[in-house]
Amino acid sequence: MPKIFIKNKNKTIDYVSNKDLLQMLLENEIFVDNPCNGKGSCGKCKIRLLEGNLPAMSETEEKFLKKEEIISGIRLSCFVVPQEDIVIEVLQKERKHEILTTGYMPSFEINSAIHKETFEIDKPTLQNQSAFEDSLCKAFGIEKFDWRLLQQHEITDGKVTGVFNDKDLIGIESGDTTDLLYGVAIDIGTTTVVAALIDMKTGNELTTASMINPQKKFGLDVLTRITYELENPGDSKEKLQHAIVNAINEMIETMCNQFNIDRKYIYEISIAANCTMMHFLLGIDATSIGKSPYAPVFVKSKNIRAKDIGLKGSPGARLYCLPAVSSYIGADIVAGAYVCQLQKNSGNLLFIDIGTNGEIVLSKNGKLLSCSCAAGPALEGMNISSGMRAAEGAIEDIEITEKGIELQVIGNEEPIGICGSGILAALKELIRIGLVKKDGAFIKKEKLEEVDYRYDMIQLDEKKRKFVLKSGPEQLFITQADVRQVQLAKGAILSGFYALLKQANIDMNQLDKIMIAGQFGAHLSADSLVGTGILPEEVKDKIVYVGNSSKTGAYMALMSVEAKKQIEELANQMDYMELGASEGYERLFVQCLQFGN
Amino acid sequence: MPKIFIKNKNKTIDYVSNKDLLQMLLENEIFVDNPCNGKGSCGKCKIRLLEGNLPAMSETEEKFLKKEEIISGIRLSCFVVPQEDIVIEVLQKERKHEILTTGYMPSFEINSAIHKETFEIDKPTLQNQSAFEDSLCKAFGIEKFDWRLLQQHEITDGKVTGVFNDKDLIGIESGDTTDLLYGVAIDIGTTTVVAALIDMKTGNELTTASMINPQKKFGLDVLTRITYELENPGDSKEKLQHAIVNAINEMIETMCNQFNIDRKYIYEISIAANCTMMHFLLGIDATSIGKSPYAPVFVKSKNIRAKDIGLKGSPGARLYCLPAVSSYIGADIVAGAYVCQLQKNSGNLLFIDIGTNGEIVLSKNGKLLSCSCAAGPALEGMNISSGMRAAEGAIEDIEITEKGIELQVIGNEEPIGICGSGILAALKELIRIGLVKKDGAFIKKEKLEEVDYRYDMIQLDEKKRKFVLKSGPEQLFITQADVRQVQLAKGAILSGFYALLKQANIDMNQLDKIMIAGQFGAHLSADSLVGTGILPEEVKDKIVYVGNSSKTGAYMALMSVEAKKQIEELANQMDYMELGASEGYERLFVQCLQFGN
Repeated sequence: MPKIFIKNKNKTIDYVSNKDLLQMLLENEIFVDNPCNGKGSCGKCKIRLLEGNLPAMSETEEKFLKKEEIISGIRLSCFVVPQEDIVIEVLQKERKHEILTTGYMPSFEINSAIHKETFEIDKPTLQNQSAFEDSLCKAFGIEKFDWRLLQQHEITDGKVTGVFNDKDLIGIESGDTTDLLYGVAIDIGTTTVVAALIDMKTGNELTTASMINPQKKFGLDVLTRITYELENPGDSKEKLQHAIVNAINEMIETMCNQFNIDRKYIYEISIAANCTMMHFLLGIDATSIGKSPYAPVFVKSKNIRAKDIGLKGSPGARLYCLPAVSSYIGADIVAGAYVCQLQKNSGNLLFIDIGTNGEIVLSKNGKLLSCSCAAGPALEGMNISSGMRAAEGAIEDIEITEKGIELQVIGNEEPIGICGSGILAALKELIRIGLVKKDGAFIKKEKLEEVDYRYDMIQLDEKKRKFVLKSGPEQLFITQADVRQVQLAKGAILSGFYALLKQANIDMNQLDKIMIAGQFGAHLSADSLVGTGILPEEVKDKIVYVGNSSKTGAYMALMSVEAKKQIEELANQMDYMELGASEGYERLFVQCLQFGN
Repeated sequence: MPKIFIKNKNKTIDYVSNKDLLQMLLENEIFVDNPCNGKGSCGKCKIRLLEGNLPAMSETEEKFLKKEEIISGIRLSCFVVPQEDIVIEVLQKERKHEILTTGYMPSFEINSAIHKETFEIDKPTLQNQSAFEDSLCKAFGIEKFDWRLLQQHEITDGKVTGVFNDKDLIGIESGDTTDLLYGVAIDIGTTTVVAALIDMKTGNELTTASMINPQKKFGLDVLTRITYELENPGDSKEKLQHAIVNAINEMIETMCNQFNIDRKYIYEISIAANCTMMHFLLGIDATSIGKSPYAPVFVKSKNIRAKDIGLKGSPGARLYCLPAVSSYIGADIVAGAYVCQLQKNSGNLLFIDIGTNGEIVLSKNGKLLSCSCAAGPALEGMNISSGMRAAEGAIEDIEITEKGIELQVIGNEEPIGICGSGILAALKELIRIGLVKKDGAFIKKEKLEEVDYRYDMIQLDEKKRKFVLKSGPEQLFITQADVRQVQLAKGAILSGFYALLKQANIDMNQLDKIMIAGQFGAHLSADSLVGTGILPEEVKDKIVYVGNSSKTGAYMALMSVEAKKQIEELANQMDYMELGASEGYERLFVQCLQFGN
């Protein structure tokens, strides 16, 4: 069987006929960036051929690559179907992403559904051969319990600890184990997964763990993963489910090991996630989320047996999935709205989670209205020429003065790309200094005098203008097309914002607070948000950041029966407005494309 | 890797070091009789070495084999650990066993918990993006259902058929499928498994299937299988479970294929079995059944998801396991007692299921008392010199006259062994003609005159007497030890019978009917039962045969909610008497060893 040797990973993989190189690399867990999921439209999945031959380059592939790159043997792995033994190197290293694990939380009373009690079980005798099941019911004062607990447990007598979920027995343990009671709160994002190990006796968060969502190999965003599911009807549901379930199991294992806790003492896992991630988690067909009329299979909360989807904890451990509102207002947003107590609020609050989709919830005296805007991946650094996610080496902030360009880079490293907050900061500066006009067009270079400090910042690339962030062989820059990507994102969010206000009949000045949630939002400065016009100038001083409110909501649900109930009520009461179906939205969107305030 | 070639099966298996030949053959599904489950105590697992060498014979092995056998290369496979390539032949062919699939059934009203209804589901729109789960609940008028149904089903609208178990939704099918509604009723015996495919719309039994319980490779009787479980704590529970689950799936597949029915239209599987088989079926530890005080893990009925133990039908199909009373009064006996309507009876009835264990239920005006007697396998043809199970070639009846011995053989073939009913018939005749005395001893040959027609029937084998059924090189005979085995079985059953009567304060003459149930019981003639003294002369005319009442009970539970309820009540109300713990039982047992009436 032909082999592919990846030199800088010192790893050999077998050649599989008819598969492209990208697929093979990803299946072997070798990291190659591929925002478009191998569709041949992003030009990111570069590798370098060191030895051997590959079939000739297609025109499309040629278009993506610079001449120097082609000369040095660089190819796009998604276009390449190897025919013989080759040696290659991969060009990206997987970098540590910055993941937000904390945030605001209101005070609440701890009152978990999970609790333990000890009992004495009678020893059977020849005269009283009671079945173990019956002795247990008698001792515990219950009528019945899930038969599957009998599979896990040997007959025992004497002291026994029962684990209960409300009134349901979910665990039987020999001896007194009441001291050992743990749970896990999780936020599954499309990009990152964050988990916290909780001591359920006290509510203390013992530690957190985070990782990139391993479903990324099936596509970086929700829609690409749904497309993957659609195009692979055989086993894609299982593959997507296994990827996330294994990731969660791994994180739980890691966290438990840190504290020397046996994971059989984990009794509940509480999860918030967007609607698609929740479908994938439960192994449920998510394809309807991807096409009009965007009706999901389910939105209601689920309180089920964790083992039924392969999660490893106590054999009877529960899995609580927070409820969603619609396909594009998921449990992560419901969790956030609950953490911000939007439903109890007496003023006008706006909650925004900015990501590939921007979700906005407006609370008008506790009445909730939500919408979702297709912002696209630009604000997360994707689909941008020099874009990357927020990781070491990413430009996250920019200041432009007459002295030049000052970059702030994550990890204080040499910059290798620009992430979402960097893009937005750059745009804000470009608009401020007038290099980008309010309609989004770069000004013509000839309009600048040569002595102007801005003159050298614009370069021409075959008549196309670009703003150079960093010169040299590994040039970093922002093109006109990049600006258009950000402009579309901006238009989507701002128009959603206005549409909600209009629907609720609220004036912008009546807003009391804007709460920015999420991984990515926390990195967007109020300056950038307002400077680019994603949010209007008027709200600048009302912006607060609430952090990972999705994980916080999962934590609250874990630790409180009332929180679960209230979260479910909140989801039920939240109205959802489908922007695409609302009148005059197209016109509003076009108006909102204008940059600046 | 060394190979073993089994010439008369034309099959080669790999040699596994340190394993004995019997194990390897059984693991490769090659039939070798092994009543003692490889313990080296039965001497039945003979094979013949054709080529190659085997380690020398141990003394124990030598004891089991005749000189001629040793000369012709015969070995006991459980003693043999091959060290090099060999060619062998196996000596037994797996014969078609006679399996009883029918029997008596009282009339009852068909009213199954499973039913279907069709509904119209609204198509979602952009304005109304209702989740599929919610649209379905609304259309079906239900609050919620098992989330796992969402895994199986794509979003659909228009006409949909709901499958209900009472009020619980257990299936969602596109279009109108109300015509397709099937179930399966099963009796799992330690030796044989019988299944019936039922059209649940009408209650018609479409066909039946039966097979030897594949757990036989882990031991022929309940206790040997429990010992196997105990000695292999790693995966024995799973292996035992998989064996029976796969067998059931195979039988369902076979029956469905006969009628071109897709097994996804099977919605309930109803099973009666003894307590140990039920534990194995559900993958629950049965070891406590094997040791004092014989307390099982469970006896209550189970109404669970069939898929949870790997049974294949509709994804939401139910598995109903009938209830047991105790470790040794299983659901098979409860089913039988229900089929015979013991609980509704106004006289005194006795229900007996004779097998390795003899279970007896006495109904005194509807009040039920039961006991279980350890009869041992003799009455099933096992642990008997020339014994075999009821299969083609087994002697099933015998008549001895002055003209000689007349044998009745199953399948009218050349006799190759004697089964339980044959042993019992032989004993009855030996007692009648005086060759076996009431104390169970053969009369001394010297007490017979040479002209006596019985003289040649007794032969001496190194001073030990035996009764020759068939002479020649493949001699069939009954030894004094064989008689003792039957005697122990007889003593166990008769003493149980008397103990129950005594406990209930009933005189034998007050019995109105004796109902003989089961596979094996149906082959025991009243003549034999009374002639050997297993049952007293007084009840001879009161004996009736009810057939496979275990399967019939499973069928009734499948087809009637009331039957399920009544069966559960019956199990609850049936008292159980542990013979070993009852006063004076030892003395009674000794008295009951006496043969004849």
